[in-house]
Amino acid sequence: MTIAQVQAVQSPSFSEVVQGRRSVRSYDPTFQISKEDMTELLQEALRAPSSSNVQPWRFLVIDSQELKEKLLPIANNQKQIVEASAVIAVLGDTEGYKLVETIVNRSYEAGFMPESMKDTFMNNTIKMYSSLPPEVAHRIIYTDGGLVSMQLMLAAKARGYDTVPMGGYNAEKFVEAFGIGERYLPIMLIAVGKAAQEGRQSVRLTVDEVANWNEFTL
Amino acid sequence: MTIAQVQAVQSPSFSEVVQGRRSVRSYDPTFQISKEDMTELLQEALRAPSSSNVQPWRFLVIDSQELKEKLLPIANNQKQIVEASAVIAVLGDTEGYKLVETIVNRSYEAGFMPESMKDTFMNNTIKMYSSLPPEVAHRIIYTDGGLVSMQLMLAAKARGYDTVPMGGYNAEKFVEAFGIGERYLPIMLIAVGKAAQEGRQSVRLTVDEVANWNEFTL
Repeated sequence: MTIAQVQAVQSPSFSEVVQGRRSVRSYDPTFQISKEDMTELLQEALRAPSSSNVQPWRFLVIDSQELKEKLLPIANNQKQIVEASAVIAVLGDTEGYKLVETIVNRSYEAGFMPESMKDTFMNNTIKMYSSLPPEVAHRIIYTDGGLVSMQLMLAAKARGYDTVPMGGYNAEKFVEAFGIGERYLPIMLIAVGKAAQEGRQSVRLTVDEVANWNEFTL
Repeated sequence: MTIAQVQAVQSPSFSEVVQGRRSVRSYDPTFQISKEDMTELLQEALRAPSSSNVQPWRFLVIDSQELKEKLLPIANNQKQIVEASAVIAVLGDTEGYKLVETIVNRSYEAGFMPESMKDTFMNNTIKMYSSLPPEVAHRIIYTDGGLVSMQLMLAAKARGYDTVPMGGYNAEKFVEAFGIGERYLPIMLIAVGKAAQEGRQSVRLTVDEVANWNEFTL
């Protein structure tokens, strides 16, 4: 069996992962996710798609207890900050186009992009993404940030961990305290760890309440 | 076995779904996803988390051939628009707070929220989300839109369908042609259907290139 096949066999079913994921706010403070395991988790999350495959997402994995304590008051003293194994800050890089050359060259070298496309695609993408009006660039970055964050939370659940996405923190204080440069947009914080208590169940609007077929009448 | 257990057994592994998902641009034009199946797919996608569980996402499922033809020139004549079984427009509702009362009441009735929390949570959420500066509200909506879109694409793959997310369309012409009110922000179009040809593989930046531990030096 290939590594991918072994992983597939060991992995829980997609449905179990999606239905089992809840926002968990209580974690076992003694449990630590290893750097190796966290790297694999991020690697799976990174398979998310992004606009023109620019992958403008960046991550700061905060797993030092000292730094989690520093983050605590900045994130409204939510106890999962210090109890979870790590808090992952999902950031968006407004200069993500600077890695397009790396991505396109690697794609060409892997045989995924024909030579005929390579230079045109690279030049057009860099030209476009470096000159977008900020509000358009930000819209793309927040959307792509949402895509990768969802896959990250599911990838964590598939490994037996739980998560909670957090928007309730002081972004200005956060970037200052953690030395995040101006080119990066804070998208969300995600606590990840071993649950000490199950997350509360939560309701959803029905498909009828949020979707129409062919004619939009919401 | 409960329905959830039966689904779990039939569902492919999480890892297979994530590793198997690629952006597919060539679809079998004769294959139609039934409304029932599409509803189940959306229902699973909707389990995504959102800021304060406001669920500001809305969807227009375009599966009439006539309307797909109408959309084609608006979406740069990408052939997946007319070949895929459906194109799902993911929209964000800037007045999503109008459904907060419904969500909170339903949550209370289901026993997921204690009575002591209900009114305070409802009032605070409505007050906050109805008075956010537009750029903050939009940031949340695009991020939540990304979360649900990712889960939607994975839920499609778990059912044997493929998808491609599209940002390359004229949003102004789209909202005009499909009668989408000003309160809705177009987030992306997602084509979904039965693949006629595999998607191209694509590379990703490595974890080292996009993530730091504890100290941000990217």
